Amino acid sequence: MPPMSKKIHAVLDKIVPVSSGKLKQAKKHFDSLTKPLGSLGRLEEWGIRYVAIAGTSFQKVEKKCVYLFSGDHGVVEEKVSAYPQEVTAQMVKIFLSGGAAINVLARHMQTEVVVVDMGVNHDFKNIPGLIHRKIARGTDNMRRGPAMTRHQAEQAIVAGMELADAAKKQKIDILGAGDMGIGNTSPSSAIISVLGEVPPNKTTGFGTGIDKKSWEHKVAVIEDAIRVNQPDPQDPIDVLAKVGGFEIAGIVGLILGSSANQIPIVIDGVISIAAAVIASKLNKNVQDYLFTSHKSSEPGCETGFQILQQKPLLDLGMRLGEGTGAVIAMNLLEAGAKIYSEMATFENAGVSQKNRG
Amino acid sequence: MPPMSKKIHAVLDKIVPVSSGKLKQAKKHFDSLTKPLGSLGRLEEWGIRYVAIAGTSFQKVEKKCVYLFSGDHGVVEEKVSAYPQEVTAQMVKIFLSGGAAINVLARHMQTEVVVVDMGVNHDFKNIPGLIHRKIARGTDNMRRGPAMTRHQAEQAIVAGMELADAAKKQKIDILGAGDMGIGNTSPSSAIISVLGEVPPNKTTGFGTGIDKKSWEHKVAVIEDAIRVNQPDPQDPIDVLAKVGGFEIAGIVGLILGSSANQIPIVIDGVISIAAAVIASKLNKNVQDYLFTSHKSSEPGCETGFQILQQKPLLDLGMRLGEGTGAVIAMNLLEAGAKIYSEMATFENAGVSQKNRG
Repeated sequence: MPPMSKKIHAVLDKIVPVSSGKLKQAKKHFDSLTKPLGSLGRLEEWGIRYVAIAGTSFQKVEKKCVYLFSGDHGVVEEKVSAYPQEVTAQMVKIFLSGGAAINVLARHMQTEVVVVDMGVNHDFKNIPGLIHRKIARGTDNMRRGPAMTRHQAEQAIVAGMELADAAKKQKIDILGAGDMGIGNTSPSSAIISVLGEVPPNKTTGFGTGIDKKSWEHKVAVIEDAIRVNQPDPQDPIDVLAKVGGFEIAGIVGLILGSSANQIPIVIDGVISIAAAVIASKLNKNVQDYLFTSHKSSEPGCETGFQILQQKPLLDLGMRLGEGTGAVIAMNLLEAGAKIYSEMATFENAGVSQKNRG
Repeated sequence: MPPMSKKIHAVLDKIVPVSSGKLKQAKKHFDSLTKPLGSLGRLEEWGIRYVAIAGTSFQKVEKKCVYLFSGDHGVVEEKVSAYPQEVTAQMVKIFLSGGAAINVLARHMQTEVVVVDMGVNHDFKNIPGLIHRKIARGTDNMRRGPAMTRHQAEQAIVAGMELADAAKKQKIDILGAGDMGIGNTSPSSAIISVLGEVPPNKTTGFGTGIDKKSWEHKVAVIEDAIRVNQPDPQDPIDVLAKVGGFEIAGIVGLILGSSANQIPIVIDGVISIAAAVIASKLNKNVQDYLFTSHKSSEPGCETGFQILQQKPLLDLGMRLGEGTGAVIAMNLLEAGAKIYSEMATFENAGVSQKNRG
């Protein structure tokens, strides 16, 4: 592994696989519940993994929280997005006022939303409720050179790790990752292309709604960014620094930190999938703590799922980001966990078992 | 349409299409919200339809309720199920005590569960909480003759319709349909085969968990039932009576009644899909009020969705019944509705619109 800060090293060392004994124990209990074996499908699959992480004496999910990492992108100079950059800061303010899609869905799913400024091109001053972890006012244009310095990328990862540590102290049971950043499907596609060894025209989509011609331009910009920066696929932090973004790095840190703290983490669409790919290349064990919420319409998701060896829970045709897919899936992860702790067993309910022979 | 009771006729006459003007109005509002157009995918699609049904002045979903229709099946004599018939009554008792999967999920999703005995082969006496609408103690064996008389089928439909009327009086905003009945995937496959004109080997699955050999036997039993009874595909109530079941008929009535009362109704797996197919053949307009929650592993679902011209919201590999898929989707339908009433618009939030040109 190439050199990196001691803090990141220490966290990577703490990420251990989920115990296969606990997975077996959890599965055994699910199999004793009053339902045909395996008949709750993926809800059970997630429930088993949740219980193996939380411990088989698990009783109740008390707190769910989604971290919404925000950052701006120098590459918007290249006109890769349908919206102007100022929308990132405007949306951050809406998140804080409670009127965005993520706020509505998170309230509905009893999930807290924490908004983090990782690198928005705006001075929010002392606006209440915002977590200030700004590394810089937006990345540099990756078509012309590296988006961040390696130091900046590591700083942003450490910020995310520290938020996971804070979540542990606050006894948060399920974490979610969301993103906001005009232009951020471009760095996400770039990361997935480099680490998945798939050309950008296979990982690039229509983002918030560009047309075919703009899509061809976007692909060319991503190809240029990779050619100009030559990110090293053997060095995930190099890839993140050169063609990533501050909010993506924050999510990388949150995934690493939650895995080290053994908190299940639900990721959202293509931006957090790109972050998960980086985290998983840094330590494959994160896959045990990671839950992929949904398949968005961005084509990079597919390559990402293959690398992460995961199947998304949902396919609702969503492509909004903000953690909107994550909060829906977090609620279903909690549902799977409740099946474990609240359902009657065949034995205690006196129900006849399946016919034998 | 063949002759049927006046009550059913009157309800069928009341089912009108959802107003295209209201659908347009609802969509217009969704398009003004602070998100890229259509970026909430199916959540929006369902939200638009919900608001068009509930009215564009819609504010809040107050009550969600799933009706769990239970009944037994004479065809279990033919050993088509992995579980003994007594499990139907045992599970009804667990539903009433709150320990089944549907209870756990419904509590999690703030949804009331109402258990209805449509025809369980057990005397529940005055057990608290159960709605008694028993037509008979189980259907007759459809392999030997009609499962029900036409009169019984109509009685069961009327029972479901009356529950929808009661739901309207109780101001329930979203209804769900669930089922319990050992052996009930067999009549469901039979119904879908007859009305979808697809052979039983294409609509029959492994139910609660039979093996390949038992599956072949189950297909043969369903083929026999269709051959012996010759249900008339032009007469949906004839099909229901000859190869259906009491709980299926109850769900048919609930779907008709909720559509007539303009209450959105979310259906579950293959059993309620079979019921929806009958309802839809009686009056196609029910499709406007119907929301298909999930694709279960039963192959009959696919044919059912084609007839209903719907795409299921979820595919979680679930095959439990009880309304477990429905309650999850009901919660997402409510989420879509809340997006409409709680989210900020571009105008009132002062967010920049998409770049033009």
